[in-house]
Amino acid sequence: MRTQVGIIGAGPAGLLLSHLLHLRGISSVVLERRSREYVERRVRAGVLEQGTVDTLVEAGVGERLLREGLPHSGIELRYGGAGHRIPFEKLVPGRAITVYGQQEVVKDLIAARLAAGGDIRFDVDDVAVHSLEDAPYVTFGGQRLDCDVIAGCDGFHGISRPAVPDGVLTAYEREYPFAWLGILARVAPSAEELIYAQTERGFALHSMRSPEISRFYLQVPAGEDLAAWPDERIWAELKTRLETVPGFTLATGEIFEKGITPLRSFVTEPMQYGRLFLAGDAAHIVPPTGAKGMNLAVADVRVLTDALARFYADGSTEPLDGYSAACLKRVWRAQHFSWWMTTLLHTFDSDDAYARRLQTSYLDYVTSSEAAATTLAENYVGLPYDAPVPAEHAVPFSGGTP
Amino acid sequence: MRTQVGIIGAGPAGLLLSHLLHLRGISSVVLERRSREYVERRVRAGVLEQGTVDTLVEAGVGERLLREGLPHSGIELRYGGAGHRIPFEKLVPGRAITVYGQQEVVKDLIAARLAAGGDIRFDVDDVAVHSLEDAPYVTFGGQRLDCDVIAGCDGFHGISRPAVPDGVLTAYEREYPFAWLGILARVAPSAEELIYAQTERGFALHSMRSPEISRFYLQVPAGEDLAAWPDERIWAELKTRLETVPGFTLATGEIFEKGITPLRSFVTEPMQYGRLFLAGDAAHIVPPTGAKGMNLAVADVRVLTDALARFYADGSTEPLDGYSAACLKRVWRAQHFSWWMTTLLHTFDSDDAYARRLQTSYLDYVTSSEAAATTLAENYVGLPYDAPVPAEHAVPFSGGTP
Repeated sequence: MRTQVGIIGAGPAGLLLSHLLHLRGISSVVLERRSREYVERRVRAGVLEQGTVDTLVEAGVGERLLREGLPHSGIELRYGGAGHRIPFEKLVPGRAITVYGQQEVVKDLIAARLAAGGDIRFDVDDVAVHSLEDAPYVTFGGQRLDCDVIAGCDGFHGISRPAVPDGVLTAYEREYPFAWLGILARVAPSAEELIYAQTERGFALHSMRSPEISRFYLQVPAGEDLAAWPDERIWAELKTRLETVPGFTLATGEIFEKGITPLRSFVTEPMQYGRLFLAGDAAHIVPPTGAKGMNLAVADVRVLTDALARFYADGSTEPLDGYSAACLKRVWRAQHFSWWMTTLLHTFDSDDAYARRLQTSYLDYVTSSEAAATTLAENYVGLPYDAPVPAEHAVPFSGGTP
Repeated sequence: MRTQVGIIGAGPAGLLLSHLLHLRGISSVVLERRSREYVERRVRAGVLEQGTVDTLVEAGVGERLLREGLPHSGIELRYGGAGHRIPFEKLVPGRAITVYGQQEVVKDLIAARLAAGGDIRFDVDDVAVHSLEDAPYVTFGGQRLDCDVIAGCDGFHGISRPAVPDGVLTAYEREYPFAWLGILARVAPSAEELIYAQTERGFALHSMRSPEISRFYLQVPAGEDLAAWPDERIWAELKTRLETVPGFTLATGEIFEKGITPLRSFVTEPMQYGRLFLAGDAAHIVPPTGAKGMNLAVADVRVLTDALARFYADGSTEPLDGYSAACLKRVWRAQHFSWWMTTLLHTFDSDDAYARRLQTSYLDYVTSSEAAATTLAENYVGLPYDAPVPAEHAVPFSGGTP
């Protein structure tokens, strides 16, 4: 079996890449070890940057997103007994976020690919990538897929990144001493917009997925056992951390999804080796505080699509060689912003009294200075896509024309 | 002997307070344990915020400052082989900084006080403050000074703060694992504006005091011995850290002043007890990176002057009770900004590769986002003076009318 681009992983990165390549007349096969049902139900991020929305709409897969997604033009920072809105409409006019679950994006992309006759193989076993330097191919379930290029879109725990020879990639990592306990509940949101709450007991986030479904997160210690959090304790803790301003009452309902996610930062440099290109979580992880994970995957895929389109158009390998450098600038901006939001809003047991006062001072500043609020707003809604940058960090794409 | 306000310390805080009180018809005596020559030669800060310049000019002590001070409308951040100017004239129109040594401010204030018949006692021994709760007085060299209020303007190591009973004040502190080696040299500045240089070998600052005198700082380890830094080594290290952009050559000259300053953050809360009011370094210390030390002292003194003027005008103690809360908001903003500039620009041995990448990403952001550059600019030139805030943190001023 042969295709132009072999894509490992049917998450947002792999599926969007397959779709965008199709629009440019480039063939691909997507290999996914999980079932279609599984990936369509996997609860992940839910905040789309303006650029992500624009990308999906321009690619023709934004119809349901525009219909069901919830556009928000601000978020609230709640601390010290008061709420402070960051008004995107004033600070970054014309840019907003849209609340729409990642699994909904996945459903839309799968439907679009299948409707166009796209080749997505679910439930494939034993996926492995080979001969990355020159004539790459993928093996899976006793079959072989030959291709020009392999896109590793299989997440942090996938097989693509570990397939790169030792010594080629450098890993940059940070682990946080806490995790997020996340729930989905059948109850209308208690506020129209997201509320990021900083308290002495830890961070809490009020979010939503639809007018009927609320999403909440609680900062909990790293390694926390979900069994220690029966529903009543979750609601009590959410109330303690969120009902801190006059007149705000948290509405509760049936919890139908519950999970704990560790907070981690990770970047691999470069994001490519020979004919293997890593995109999304396979190349970088951010703590969810900045809502950047899926949006970074979309940005990577845009760059990779353009580079592959150039390659198939005129054989030019320069954009492919520059893929990593083009992506990493945005990746590190998002890494920094995610770290910044995380440290601004979480409680660190290691913080002394001085550090806690600094945190309050920073919150006071972000909520009172237009410039400081704008730094939050412009990162949150997503910075504009950059023009490609020089290939300084790239491992050269190994020659040849398609 | 009796006066209305007994002032401990003839640094910028104590002298400016005495001068501003005089303009409001309030008497004071300044007690200073050092000689006039010593305080007029003590080399300290050299960057005045817009508000500090305005305060001095409005108080009639800005004539030489306006003549000899060097107004700057930007600073340069230099890293990664390039310089990036933060243009105040564009980001914070109408606000700038003025380079003018602290000891020059001290000279101007001493001259003004003495010309007006002000009472400054230099070289006084054994200064002690007493009866702070009710009828305060100061003893020194066998004499006694009775007063309504004592202003502790005697710096971090002074006697005022330790005179407050145990358990009243809370100290917030941070020490940094490095110090600044500072020099003054007889050589024209090598650039018109300040250059804040971040390098793998550590931070360096190119500054100046006049068209003929340059001021430089080098990040060195905490506890470094000045003897380890002969002039040749200082110049070599300055060149290594500053000559990192094409076309920039560091001019060298005779070094005539050399010292090492530890970097420390410190705040006491509240900044008052009974009839003792702490101002400037007696109440708070910042690392010099943000150039905020003397400017904070001026802000404190403005608040204290207004509060004392109200007290002597109509006996109202409310502004005095609110002194600490009114000052601390600005103090913590400056604490945060100074910490922010320090971590943005210094090399921390404890930083891992991830942290170093974050630092570079932050520098890239500050030098490319107008909003982020504005946060630096508006803090550096100094935020506007606030209206007084409620006295939530204050220890009540103990009753009575003047």
